[in-house]
Amino acid sequence: MPGTKWSFIVPQFQLECGVTLLSPTVCYQSWGTLNHARNNVMVICHPFTGSVDVEKWWGPLMGAGKAFDPMHYFIICANVLGSPFGTASPLSIDSSTGRRYGPDFPPTTIRDDVRLHKLVLDHLGITSVAVVVGGSMGGMTALEWPLCFPGLVQRIIPLATCAKQSAWCIAWGEAKRQIIYTDSAFRGGHYPRERPPKQGLAAARMVGLVTYRSCDSYEQRFGRKLDDPSPHVPHPHQKADDSTVCSTEKTQITVDPAEHPRFSAQSYLHYKGATFATDFDANCYIHLTHKMDTHDITRGRMSAAVDIDEHTALSAVLRTLPPHPLIISISSDVLCPPHEQKILADGIPEAELVVIDSMAGHDGFLVEGERIDAAVVKYLRREFPEFYR
Amino acid sequence: MPGTKWSFIVPQFQLECGVTLLSPTVCYQSWGTLNHARNNVMVICHPFTGSVDVEKWWGPLMGAGKAFDPMHYFIICANVLGSPFGTASPLSIDSSTGRRYGPDFPPTTIRDDVRLHKLVLDHLGITSVAVVVGGSMGGMTALEWPLCFPGLVQRIIPLATCAKQSAWCIAWGEAKRQIIYTDSAFRGGHYPRERPPKQGLAAARMVGLVTYRSCDSYEQRFGRKLDDPSPHVPHPHQKADDSTVCSTEKTQITVDPAEHPRFSAQSYLHYKGATFATDFDANCYIHLTHKMDTHDITRGRMSAAVDIDEHTALSAVLRTLPPHPLIISISSDVLCPPHEQKILADGIPEAELVVIDSMAGHDGFLVEGERIDAAVVKYLRREFPEFYR
Repeated sequence: MPGTKWSFIVPQFQLECGVTLLSPTVCYQSWGTLNHARNNVMVICHPFTGSVDVEKWWGPLMGAGKAFDPMHYFIICANVLGSPFGTASPLSIDSSTGRRYGPDFPPTTIRDDVRLHKLVLDHLGITSVAVVVGGSMGGMTALEWPLCFPGLVQRIIPLATCAKQSAWCIAWGEAKRQIIYTDSAFRGGHYPRERPPKQGLAAARMVGLVTYRSCDSYEQRFGRKLDDPSPHVPHPHQKADDSTVCSTEKTQITVDPAEHPRFSAQSYLHYKGATFATDFDANCYIHLTHKMDTHDITRGRMSAAVDIDEHTALSAVLRTLPPHPLIISISSDVLCPPHEQKILADGIPEAELVVIDSMAGHDGFLVEGERIDAAVVKYLRREFPEFYR
Repeated sequence: MPGTKWSFIVPQFQLECGVTLLSPTVCYQSWGTLNHARNNVMVICHPFTGSVDVEKWWGPLMGAGKAFDPMHYFIICANVLGSPFGTASPLSIDSSTGRRYGPDFPPTTIRDDVRLHKLVLDHLGITSVAVVVGGSMGGMTALEWPLCFPGLVQRIIPLATCAKQSAWCIAWGEAKRQIIYTDSAFRGGHYPRERPPKQGLAAARMVGLVTYRSCDSYEQRFGRKLDDPSPHVPHPHQKADDSTVCSTEKTQITVDPAEHPRFSAQSYLHYKGATFATDFDANCYIHLTHKMDTHDITRGRMSAAVDIDEHTALSAVLRTLPPHPLIISISSDVLCPPHEQKILADGIPEAELVVIDSMAGHDGFLVEGERIDAAVVKYLRREFPEFYR
């Protein structure tokens, strides 16, 4: 069920940091049609490394009879600032210099994304959004939509996400950035297009890949299985000082000397890391980790004059969110553990919390697509019976 | 309570990989005195980045009235092969070349460590060990002692450890190695002493530091606190392409541009990563990650002629371990989760499993020293009343 991809150019856009972007592009995709009341709107917010191609990462939820059903909704997914997939980012040309922004692309926040994407809705004449749904970073965005535009959004469905980026996730982001900085090809972000820091980006992605799952899921999938020669992974006949080359456009992954056993879990990381380093951009990766670090729904929302503690501030903000959200947890999520969604469910009025019992870890919000689809369909049909008549 | 440090030189030692080390040194430390029966022996096995200076990392357990009490035990802790703290390692001189082994130091296993350290016991005329205790990698070693030398060991106390290195931990090890390989200073391990790959080693350590704790513990300690200028952390007034220098002997940690908030959790990683990169060695670090990957107490112990499944093999091997061990779990351990110690407790005859309820994560076996000390003291007094008379 193909959507339609659009590029929308905003004349200018002031970021929270104070910098004004001139003519930033917003890349978005839409599916289905607006109803007469122009209110059957579903906004999908993509995660960290996702794009507007929702079918690619949330396929089991997309299509006729599924949660994201273009027969019933006008569905829209817009790419966030700093992502390499179409919206203004470090890969864009800075009109003031005529060169790519690279590491000089100004810092952006989840709130910047919401305000920018709102301009697309304005352009489409949309003044009411039925539901905003998103997992992980997309869940942060889903929480920010109704906070940035009170009254606009009827319902939200945040998955595997949090009210504020935790210290642990801040630490993960920092470790990943330091890995990329270690690659001498990074050159402070001023790398030429043809020589990006692929090895550092691949290694950072490997760390991400481990955190996105769980000990149990790796055990079940890989255990202590040794690698067998496969088309996508080079076999180790080299010394550690001879880099071998993965098939994915020559992202270099160093393979250990043959005297070490080669486990399947290692080959999985090599393959996934190398593929990612070819498809993504290091400056964008760093940018997005910083963006998530800024996420805190209480930030700047409580009067500085009132001396209240963090917990009270969080409760006060959560109370203002649209009632009756569907909040989804993955039981084995170590990155945004279930207790973080419990905080959301305890604070947002009349929240429904569904914990998916799964060993898939944080990625469970993607991997457990069919179970999540079932929960979301049930919720949507109950909340919006008018769209299903 | 200072112990005495010793260096013991073995004429030659054949490793499991087949290579024979010539004149390898074993560095060890001992406390207390042997009793008349020469059986009041306590072997302490150090973790991954530990050393024979047990007071430094397990201080709360060491001393009069504590678990490791030299008044009652002859206590010995020997440094493992490949560790940079005295025993033969990549830092040692290869007598066949007159140069340091560096990356050419042959791979070693936990079993090699046990067999090498047993030579020290032989030298001391010890033929019976009361108890072997160790956490994490040290716990792997504690499990291997009685398996390598049946009848030698009376009791074992493995903490925060596993019967076999899990796929998740194999993946962490691989990610950390790839981070070090990303540092161009690594040069396939052939780096000069004065120019080691500190940045890569620091970044790998940062990843370790995050895995060693838990989301909750980072939250409690750091939350979203911003950094305040402190003596050990440089303040960010540089662009990302200007590396700033931590105080720890100039290990370079790249600090992000000032427009990004600087969280305390980041500064913690910078400081700890830089300190570690100064004290440790990259080839040793890589070596030890490979060593842990080989850990599997069933490896080679079941006849190849008998076609049995993994679970049956594990049960068969666990049954041969000394009865009535004390096994300790940390409830929030994500690296060696409590279910891995449950497997040990279910398989070893008459095991006692103590789960320490703590948010400290894997490092809980060190951080929760006082609670662990209490559990171990209670256990030792019951199992070895004769040493306390």
